[in-house]
Amino acid sequence: MEARDQVDYVSGKTRVFGIVGHPIEQVRSPEMITAELTGRGHDAVLVPLHVLPDAFDAVLPQLMRVQNLGGLVFTIPYKVRACALADELLPQARIVGAINALGRAPDGRWRAEIFDGLGCVEAFRRRGIALRGQRVMLLGAGGAGSAIAAAVAAERPAALRIYDVDSERASGLVGRLAAAHPGADIRAGPPTTDGIDVLLNASPVGMLADARLPFAVERLPHGLVVFDAIVKPERTPLITLAESCGCTTVFGREMMRGQIARMVDFFYAT
Amino acid sequence: MEARDQVDYVSGKTRVFGIVGHPIEQVRSPEMITAELTGRGHDAVLVPLHVLPDAFDAVLPQLMRVQNLGGLVFTIPYKVRACALADELLPQARIVGAINALGRAPDGRWRAEIFDGLGCVEAFRRRGIALRGQRVMLLGAGGAGSAIAAAVAAERPAALRIYDVDSERASGLVGRLAAAHPGADIRAGPPTTDGIDVLLNASPVGMLADARLPFAVERLPHGLVVFDAIVKPERTPLITLAESCGCTTVFGREMMRGQIARMVDFFYAT
Repeated sequence: MEARDQVDYVSGKTRVFGIVGHPIEQVRSPEMITAELTGRGHDAVLVPLHVLPDAFDAVLPQLMRVQNLGGLVFTIPYKVRACALADELLPQARIVGAINALGRAPDGRWRAEIFDGLGCVEAFRRRGIALRGQRVMLLGAGGAGSAIAAAVAAERPAALRIYDVDSERASGLVGRLAAAHPGADIRAGPPTTDGIDVLLNASPVGMLADARLPFAVERLPHGLVVFDAIVKPERTPLITLAESCGCTTVFGREMMRGQIARMVDFFYAT
Repeated sequence: MEARDQVDYVSGKTRVFGIVGHPIEQVRSPEMITAELTGRGHDAVLVPLHVLPDAFDAVLPQLMRVQNLGGLVFTIPYKVRACALADELLPQARIVGAINALGRAPDGRWRAEIFDGLGCVEAFRRRGIALRGQRVMLLGAGGAGSAIAAAVAAERPAALRIYDVDSERASGLVGRLAAAHPGADIRAGPPTTDGIDVLLNASPVGMLADARLPFAVERLPHGLVVFDAIVKPERTPLITLAESCGCTTVFGREMMRGQIARMVDFFYAT
């Protein structure tokens, strides 16, 4: 205390953001989103907020009355439930039925969006790989898969094929996407790389110590672009196979970075 | 973002503290208390929380349900109102009728105390100046004055004299102190240095550009210890006079540091 009387990263003027989840200790948003906020010159910090499920509905509306709260990020298990807090759901959130960011607009209204899929699209944009006009195969139609599907569909691919082990989940998502994009070639279908330019894995297969591929395949076409949303490990079995086949690979960590960038754009949008 | 992917001062495991006030931008607790917390090795941050008066009663009880919230500091205009949030008021808070810190005890109960006065006593302790057995004159019986009086009275001075321009305020405080310390020599009285060892200014006279002394005096006894609770300027007219008379002087900033140390003790007390 005598040595260092004050820190330089928080003051009475700091805009506060929070990530709300249960549990909370494992989240990475505090260190990563705060870095993006401060790296852009904002006087802001994102802190963890551990809210229990039976407290969520009472706590959140009151927390949102804190005047210097700039926005909230939502993680498990609140991405669906948090929709009710928003005055307005932006396009991806409407299709997916879930949000992960709630921002206070300059007019005081709370707008919400889900950025998982937008982060994936941002990762491709940063690599200079267009999704428009491409034939895309998506594996997994759960939370992350839905968000990726919604964001990719908005890029106007030539075709979007969606596979999930739960076929009803895949067809439900296809129905919502088709309603939002009339005339687009969006269908459920089995996993394949035939006639596919971009393969996206949003299933949990290959996560951590899981040595499986998300579908039965021995070789991937050389020209295929392969993305895996999984962050840990960085090199999933699918990515390892793709690299050995000479494919272009895009990593889950790039999606995470893209998502953080788009979220901070959103929090400070005018 | 590319250059610095994450900050090192906040994560999902960070314990969150807040300072609640209206307005909030001028507060110094975020940078100072966070420095004390981290300087002691705690993974913690104190952020500003701007709560409007008409929202206070609804927001605070819900905010206190955030599981990783370690405690709250209260500033203007909430020091009295925040008493209602505590399960238990500690001794100084009971006498003063105000709190500035609310901490979550390990048993889940919320305990509250006011640390302004304890910070003053801590400043004297750090200087090695005993208050026990001394004859003390206190100027000002408002918020800060009440807290200082309560903390000084607990040190068992030989005598405590209290002056305020509002004589009812002074006598009211004396009554509360006398009830808490039966038999102690605590009385209201005019400002004087006759028979006084320690002079404490807790009135706002001398703050910022105010060139006045808190009472009419031309010289101070050489042996007098003079304390001024005012932080800005560091050298108030009273401190300047005291220095010119060879008195020992204790600064408002020392009280602030002492208060912060005692508050962090309190937040992490088992």
